[in-house]
Amino acid sequence: MRIENDSIGSIPIHADSYNGIHTFRARMNFDISKQEVDRVLLYQIAQIKAAAAIANQQTGKLSALKARTIVDVVDEILDGQWDQELRLDAFQGGAGTSTNMLLNEFIANRGLERLGHLKGEYQYLHPLDDINQSQSTNDVYPSAGKLAVFLQIHQLLEPLQALTGVLDEKAVAFANIQKMGRTQLQDAVPTTFGQSFQAYGNNLKRCAKRLRAIMNELTELNLGGTAIGTCVNASIPYRTIVYRELKKRSKIAVKPAADFIDATQNLDVFVMVSSVLKALAVSLLKMSHDLRLLSSGPRAGLAELALPARQAGSSIMPGKVNPVIPEVVSQIAFQVMGNDTTITIAAESGELELNAFEPVIFHNLFESIQLLNQGCRVLNTHCLADIQVNSEKCLQDVSHGTALATKLAPIIGYERASNVVKESLLKNIPVEELLGKESFEALSKQIG
Amino acid sequence: MRIENDSIGSIPIHADSYNGIHTFRARMNFDISKQEVDRVLLYQIAQIKAAAAIANQQTGKLSALKARTIVDVVDEILDGQWDQELRLDAFQGGAGTSTNMLLNEFIANRGLERLGHLKGEYQYLHPLDDINQSQSTNDVYPSAGKLAVFLQIHQLLEPLQALTGVLDEKAVAFANIQKMGRTQLQDAVPTTFGQSFQAYGNNLKRCAKRLRAIMNELTELNLGGTAIGTCVNASIPYRTIVYRELKKRSKIAVKPAADFIDATQNLDVFVMVSSVLKALAVSLLKMSHDLRLLSSGPRAGLAELALPARQAGSSIMPGKVNPVIPEVVSQIAFQVMGNDTTITIAAESGELELNAFEPVIFHNLFESIQLLNQGCRVLNTHCLADIQVNSEKCLQDVSHGTALATKLAPIIGYERASNVVKESLLKNIPVEELLGKESFEALSKQIG
Amino acid sequence: MRIENDSIGSIPIHADSYNGIHTFRARMNFDISKQEVDRVLLYQIAQIKAAAAIANQQTGKLSALKARTIVDVVDEILDGQWDQELRLDAFQGGAGTSTNMLLNEFIANRGLERLGHLKGEYQYLHPLDDINQSQSTNDVYPSAGKLAVFLQIHQLLEPLQALTGVLDEKAVAFANIQKMGRTQLQDAVPTTFGQSFQAYGNNLKRCAKRLRAIMNELTELNLGGTAIGTCVNASIPYRTIVYRELKKRSKIAVKPAADFIDATQNLDVFVMVSSVLKALAVSLLKMSHDLRLLSSGPRAGLAELALPARQAGSSIMPGKVNPVIPEVVSQIAFQVMGNDTTITIAAESGELELNAFEPVIFHNLFESIQLLNQGCRVLNTHCLADIQVNSEKCLQDVSHGTALATKLAPIIGYERASNVVKESLLKNIPVEELLGKESFEALSKQIG
Amino acid sequence: MRIENDSIGSIPIHADSYNGIHTFRARMNFDISKQEVDRVLLYQIAQIKAAAAIANQQTGKLSALKARTIVDVVDEILDGQWDQELRLDAFQGGAGTSTNMLLNEFIANRGLERLGHLKGEYQYLHPLDDINQSQSTNDVYPSAGKLAVFLQIHQLLEPLQALTGVLDEKAVAFANIQKMGRTQLQDAVPTTFGQSFQAYGNNLKRCAKRLRAIMNELTELNLGGTAIGTCVNASIPYRTIVYRELKKRSKIAVKPAADFIDATQNLDVFVMVSSVLKALAVSLLKMSHDLRLLSSGPRAGLAELALPARQAGSSIMPGKVNPVIPEVVSQIAFQVMGNDTTITIAAESGELELNAFEPVIFHNLFESIQLLNQGCRVLNTHCLADIQVNSEKCLQDVSHGTALATKLAPIIGYERASNVVKESLLKNIPVEELLGKESFEALSKQIG
Repeated sequence: MRIENDSIGSIPIHADSYNGIHTFRARMNFDISKQEVDRVLLYQIAQIKAAAAIANQQTGKLSALKARTIVDVVDEILDGQWDQELRLDAFQGGAGTSTNMLLNEFIANRGLERLGHLKGEYQYLHPLDDINQSQSTNDVYPSAGKLAVFLQIHQLLEPLQALTGVLDEKAVAFANIQKMGRTQLQDAVPTTFGQSFQAYGNNLKRCAKRLRAIMNELTELNLGGTAIGTCVNASIPYRTIVYRELKKRSKIAVKPAADFIDATQNLDVFVMVSSVLKALAVSLLKMSHDLRLLSSGPRAGLAELALPARQAGSSIMPGKVNPVIPEVVSQIAFQVMGNDTTITIAAESGELELNAFEPVIFHNLFESIQLLNQGCRVLNTHCLADIQVNSEKCLQDVSHGTALATKLAPIIGYERASNVVKESLLKNIPVEELLGKESFEALSKQIG
Repeated sequence: MRIENDSIGSIPIHADSYNGIHTFRARMNFDISKQEVDRVLLYQIAQIKAAAAIANQQTGKLSALKARTIVDVVDEILDGQWDQELRLDAFQGGAGTSTNMLLNEFIANRGLERLGHLKGEYQYLHPLDDINQSQSTNDVYPSAGKLAVFLQIHQLLEPLQALTGVLDEKAVAFANIQKMGRTQLQDAVPTTFGQSFQAYGNNLKRCAKRLRAIMNELTELNLGGTAIGTCVNASIPYRTIVYRELKKRSKIAVKPAADFIDATQNLDVFVMVSSVLKALAVSLLKMSHDLRLLSSGPRAGLAELALPARQAGSSIMPGKVNPVIPEVVSQIAFQVMGNDTTITIAAESGELELNAFEPVIFHNLFESIQLLNQGCRVLNTHCLADIQVNSEKCLQDVSHGTALATKLAPIIGYERASNVVKESLLKNIPVEELLGKESFEALSKQIG
Repeated sequence: MRIENDSIGSIPIHADSYNGIHTFRARMNFDISKQEVDRVLLYQIAQIKAAAAIANQQTGKLSALKARTIVDVVDEILDGQWDQELRLDAFQGGAGTSTNMLLNEFIANRGLERLGHLKGEYQYLHPLDDINQSQSTNDVYPSAGKLAVFLQIHQLLEPLQALTGVLDEKAVAFANIQKMGRTQLQDAVPTTFGQSFQAYGNNLKRCAKRLRAIMNELTELNLGGTAIGTCVNASIPYRTIVYRELKKRSKIAVKPAADFIDATQNLDVFVMVSSVLKALAVSLLKMSHDLRLLSSGPRAGLAELALPARQAGSSIMPGKVNPVIPEVVSQIAFQVMGNDTTITIAAESGELELNAFEPVIFHNLFESIQLLNQGCRVLNTHCLADIQVNSEKCLQDVSHGTALATKLAPIIGYERASNVVKESLLKNIPVEELLGKESFEALSKQIG
Repeated sequence: MRIENDSIGSIPIHADSYNGIHTFRARMNFDISKQEVDRVLLYQIAQIKAAAAIANQQTGKLSALKARTIVDVVDEILDGQWDQELRLDAFQGGAGTSTNMLLNEFIANRGLERLGHLKGEYQYLHPLDDINQSQSTNDVYPSAGKLAVFLQIHQLLEPLQALTGVLDEKAVAFANIQKMGRTQLQDAVPTTFGQSFQAYGNNLKRCAKRLRAIMNELTELNLGGTAIGTCVNASIPYRTIVYRELKKRSKIAVKPAADFIDATQNLDVFVMVSSVLKALAVSLLKMSHDLRLLSSGPRAGLAELALPARQAGSSIMPGKVNPVIPEVVSQIAFQVMGNDTTITIAAESGELELNAFEPVIFHNLFESIQLLNQGCRVLNTHCLADIQVNSEKCLQDVSHGTALATKLAPIIGYERASNVVKESLLKNIPVEELLGKESFEALSKQIG
C-alpha cells in the first residue's frame, strides 16, 4: 500500500497499482454504464502526451530522461500493451479530466517502473508536473477527441467506398433491366435497376465527400490553449514544437485553431460531424427501406429483388427468409439519428468558457461511426454483393403498366391521356389496345 | 396621443389605442415569426382575469364596479369581439409576461372606455394594480396554458373518436376478407382486413385513453402561487375563491397543485402531454404508411386496398392518383415528432424557480394538437370512410402463399416443413401438390 | 464436428458447441457493435420457454421428460450459469428471431447434454418443435421485452425512491434557510432552500408515479398470439396455462392483451415508456443544472450551495473542484433524450403486421433505464447526501435585494414601486432607506 | 359557372375564379394548418414556368404568343400582384403536385384573361399541356424548393454578418476588460470580455461560412429530369435552354445535377441544410445562454453584463427587467432543433423514386431560416448593440480569485499549489498573503 494525496484528502492505493489518486476517485465516482472510454481516444491522448514531452524537453522544461520515458510508455500504449489497464467509464463528469488523469497517472507509474522506481514516487516523474506539463484537460481532451473522430471517420471511408464500389458494379450489371419506377408508391414511368443502383451509389459518394470535408475541420486543434484557451503555462516555443511533433507522430496535418478561446468553448464542429453521419444514416436507411420493399414477397409482395438468404427467418414459419441485413442497417441508422439528438443537446448545453459535456459527445460520435462502419460492411458483403434481380417480374410490371400514357400526353393532350388511363384500368385493357393498333403505331412513331 | 411610462422610460401611444406601454414594447421587441399567440390561450388568460376580479372583489380588494367591468370585458373577449386586437407574436421572451400584459392593458383600456373614461386613465382602472391584482405572470400564464391545452385536447378527442368509429365499422365490414399477413414485409400467415382495421382502431383507442388521462393532470394549476409559487400578494381567501370562480366559468374541474413552487418551475407535465401526442402521431403514421403500402399499384404494387381518389396525382403522368391523404397525415406526424424535440429541450432548459420558455412550449403543443385534429378529420372523411378492399387480389395472395407450412410444422416437423416451402418456391408448385393429395388431406384433418 | 441444416444449407458446428445453425448464422450476420443483448431480456425469454414447456406438457403436446428438462435448463440460465454462453450482438435484424433461436438452441443442446445425448441430436429434444412449441418469435420476443422492461423499471424505482427520500430530508433540514428566488435568472422574491428541495422531490415523485403507471401497461402481453397475433399453432388451453405458469414463475401479474394483432404490430407502449423515462431525465437534468448553477464559484459564482468535493477538478488549475456528479447526470439525461429519438423512429417505422425493429428499441430502453438507475444512485450518494448550504451568502443576497418592492406594490401601486426599485438599483441605496424609515415601518405593518 | 373535368370527375367552378379543378380539389383536401405555402417557393415555381416557356418556345413546342403570355403572368406574380390569390396550405400530400398545379392553373387562367379569353378556355392556353410542358412536379417542385432555400439563406447571411460585425466591435471595445473565466461554472483563470465576444463572433463566422458552402450545393437542380429523373417528355435542347433562361432570370448559377434519378429521390442535401441551420441555432443558443447567465442579478447574480432594458419584466415584481431578447433567441433555437428532427424523419421516409414529403421539409426549412433571420436581427439591434460591461464587478471577481495558483503550479508544483488554494478558500485569505509577501514577489518574477 502507498498513500496518495490530493486537495480533497488521502487514499491508500495498492503498491502495484498503476492508478493514482485521481484515477481511483474517478472509478469510485463513475460506475455508470457498461461502456468504456474508446481506445482510440485514449491513444490520441497518449500521442499528445508524447508530443508534449518532446516539446517540453526541447524548451528546457523536462529532462531528456523523463521525456524519453514518457515517449517510451506512450509507444507501449499505442502498441496495445496496456488496453486492459486503461479503462474508465465512458459516462463521466469533469469534462474529460478523469480520462486525462488516467493517462497522466498511468504514464507516470509505468514510467517510474521502467526507471526502477516504485509506483507513486512521483518526485521522479510526476503525473501533473511532468506528464501533463504545459497542458490542460481543456486543450488535451478536445484535441484528442478531434483526432480520434478524424481517425475513425478515416476508417469509415474504406467500407463506404467498398459499398459505392459494389453499387457501381450493380449499376453496370443491371443497366438493362427495366423496372417500374414509382412515385408515392404508385406506378409512375419505367426506369432500370441500373439507374436505381447508380442513384444509391451517387448518394453515398456525396456522403463520403462530406465526410472528407469535415475531416479537414477536425485537424484544427486548441492544443496549446491550456486553460480555457488562454495558453497559460504553455510557452510560444512549446506551442510550435508540440504541433510539429504531433503531426510527425500522428501523420495528421494538425494545426492550431485561429482562436483558442472559441475552439475551447464551442463544439459546433462536432454537431456538424454528427450531422454528416446522420445524412449518411438517412441515405443508408432510405436504401435499406427500398431493398426491403423491392424484395418483399416471395408471393404477395413486389418481389423485384432477391436478397441473399442469410438465415432462417422465423421460429414458427418454416422456410421464411427475412431481409435481416437491411433491417440491421436500418436500426443502425435509427441509433445514429438518436445519437445526433444527444450530441446536439450536449453541444448547446455548454456554458461560458468550456463545454463540460464532451465525454458524452465523443462517446456518441464513436458509436455512430463504428456502427456505420460495420453497417456498410455487412450491407456490402452480406447483401449487396450477391443481390439478384427478378427481371421477369420487373418486365411484367412495366409492360402491364399505364406509363405509356405519359409519353402520349404531349401528343394527345393531358386530358385525353388521363381518360385513356382511367379506361385502361377500369376495363383492364392495355392502353395500346384501347387506342387501336393503327393510331397507337402512329403515335409511337411520334414519340420516337 | 397619450404618454405612458414604465421603469424604462415613456412612450407616446395613440389616444385610441387599447395597447399600453408594455404591449407596445412587446410588439417592438418580438417581430419574429408570422405566427401569433393562440386565441385559446388568450381566452384562458381572460377567464383567469375574470375569476381573479371576482375573488379580489369578494375579498374586499377591488370595487364592485371595477370587478364587473373586468368581467364584462372578458365576456366580450370570449365572445370573439376582440380577436383582431389581441394579437402578439407567438415567439416571445419574458416567460409570457408580454401576453399577460396584453390582456391586462387591453382589459383596462376597454374597461375605461366602457366606464366613460379615456384610455390610459389608469387611475380609474389599472392594468397592474387592478386587472393583474393578486396575480403574477408566473401563475396566470402556465395556468392558462394548461387550460388551453386541456381544451384543445378535448376538441381533439372528437375527431379521434370519429376515426376509431369508422375503423370499427371497417373492421366489421371487412371481417371476412382474407389477406396475407406479413412480417418484415415477407409473406407470413393469413389474416383478415377486419383484424387489420380492428388493430388500427384499438391502437387509437389506447391513444385516446392516454389523452384523457393526461387531461386530468392538466387541471392542477399553480394559480394563486403568484411569483415563483410563494403566493406573495395572493391572500388565502382569494386563492379559495379564484378556483371556485374559474371552475364555474370554465366548466373545468381546476384545483390547486399540491406544491406551487414545484408546479411553477417544473414543466414535466408538458413533456408528457407532448409524448402522448407523439404516441398518437406514431400510431397515425404507422397506419398511414400501411395504407400507402397496401394501396400501392395500381399494377406494380400490392393493390390490396383502394383509397378514394381525391385529386389528380401528377402534372406529367395522366391518370395517376396518389394517396395524398395518408401522405399529409404522415407529414403531420413528422411535425408532431419534431415539435416534441422542441418541447423537450425547452422544458429541460428552464432554470431555478421558473422556466422562461413556456411560450415556445405552448406554441408547439397547440400546433401539434391542431394538426392532429385536422389530420384525424381528413383521414376519416377523405380516406377511410370510402376505402375499398380488392378482395380478389387479397385472396390470390393468400392462396398462392406458403403459409400452410406453418400449420403443417407441428405435424411434420419444422425442418421438413422448411424443405417443402423451399421446394414449393423453387419449383413454383403449391405446397399441397408437393405433399401429394392424399397425405395433404390426411394432414389437413390433423390441423383441423 | 456435427453438421446442422436449415432451409438455406448446412454448416459444420463444433461437436461441443451449444450453438445450433441458427445461432451460428446470427453470429456471422451480426458482428455490428460492442454491445450485447441484455441479460434480463434473455432471462425473460427463458422464463417463457419454461412456462410454455409446462403448458405444452399439460396439453399433451410435450412429454414430461422433455418439459422437465426444459424447465431445469431454464433454471440453470436464471441462476446465471450460462451468461458467458448466451451472448449475441444487440444490433440484429430479424425482429428478435436470432435471440429467440439462441435460447431455443441453447436449451435444446444443454437439455440433450443433461439427458445423456449428444449435442445436435435434436430427434430427442428439438429447438423448434419442442423448445419453441406453440410459440413464435412474434409473441415470445415482445412479451419477454415487456417483462424485461418491467423488471428494470422496477429496479429503477428503488434508487429513485432513495433520491426522493434524501430530497425530503434536505427539504426539512433547509426549511428555514432563506435564499433569493430567481425567474429568468433575475432576482425575484425570496424563497427557502427547503422549498427548493421539496420541489425537486415532488417532481421526482411524480416521475416515479408515472413509472408505476406504465409498468401496469407492460403486463399485457401478446404471448399466445404466435405468428402476427393469429394464435396459429397455439391452442386455447395452452394459452390459458402459459399465462398461469408465467405469472407463477415471474411473480408478475401478466395477462393477455385484448387484441393480439394490435399488440403484435403496434409499439406505442414502448414509445410511452421511453417518454416517461425522458420526463424523468428532463427532471434530473433541470435539477442537475440548478445544482451546478447554485454551486458556481467558489468566488465568482452564486456559491449558495456547496457540493461535496469528489475529485480534483483540473490537471492544470490546482485546487479546482467541479460539480462532476451533476455533470454526469446531465450527460445521462442527454443520452436518454437521444435514445427517445431512436425509439420513436424505430417504433413508427414498423410495417403491417410486425415491427422488425424491436431489438434496437429494447436495447435503447434498457440503456436508458440502467443509466437512469445509476444516475439516481450517484446523485444521491455522491452529491445530495452531503450537500451543504452557504446560508450566509444566501441571506446576503436576500437582504440586499429589491424583492421588498413586490410586497409594497399592492400598497403604493405598481408604478411607484417600480420607480423605487429603479432608484434603489441606480443609487445603490436599500429600498427601506429610500422610502424613509417611518413610512417604511408603516408600510411594513400593512404588509403584515 | 364553368365546369372543369379531370380523371376523377367534374366540378363547377365560379366563372371568375383563377383556380382550376386541381387547385379546387387541393383546397378541399388540405384544410390542415393555419400556415401557407411560402411565397418564395411559389415565386421560384413561377420563375421555372417562365424559363420553361421560353425553352419550349425556342424548341418549337410552344407558340410565341403563349410563351410571352406565360412570361408576362410570371412577371406579375413576381411583382407581388397575385399574393392573395396564390395561397395553399403548407401541409399537403402529393409531393408538391398541388402547389405546382396552383401555379399551372393560375398562370393559364390569368393568361387567358390577358389574351381576352374566358377563364377555363384551356384550348387557348392549357395548364398542363402548355404551362407545365416538358415539366413534372418531380423536377419543378424540388428545383424551386432548392432555389427558395438558396434565396432565404442568402437573406439570412445579411443579419448574420451584421451580428458578427457588432460582435467584432464589442471584442475591440471590451478588449481590456478582465473577467473571470469559468469552466464547468467554476472559477478557472482570467480572460477578457474582448476574448469572449471575439469567440462568439468567430463561432458565427464559421456558421456563415457553412451556409455559403451549402448554398453552392443548392444550385444543382434536377430540373429537366421530369418524372422520377428520366427526362421523359423533356428534350435535350429544352434542358439546355431552360437552365440558361433560369440562370438569367434568377441570377443564380443553376446547373443540372449529374444524376437526375439520384437528385429526384434523395433529399440528403436538405438534411445537410437543416444541419447547418441547427449548428447556427446551437451557437446562438449557447451565446444567449451565456448572455443570460452573465447578466444575472442585479444583486444576487453574476452581474458582469448589463443587457439593455427592453421592457418591464414582471406583472407582479415592479422594476424587474428580464433578458427577453436572449430568451426569444433561445426559443428560436429550440424550434430550429425540433424542425431538424421533422426534416430528418421526413427525408428518411421517402421511398423508391420520389420522396413524397418535400412539402413538410420545405415548410420547416423556411420557418427555421426565417426565425434565425429575425433572431439575428433582434439579438443585434435590441441587445448586443447596447450591451454594457460591469467592469468593476468583473475586476473584483478576478482579483479575489485563486487563479493565480495556476500560474504558480509550474514553479511550486501542482500539489503544493493545490494546498495553497485549499487554504486560501478555507481561511478566506488571498493566495498572495498566504505565500508571504517576499516569496510571492520572487515567484511573480519567475512567472513574468
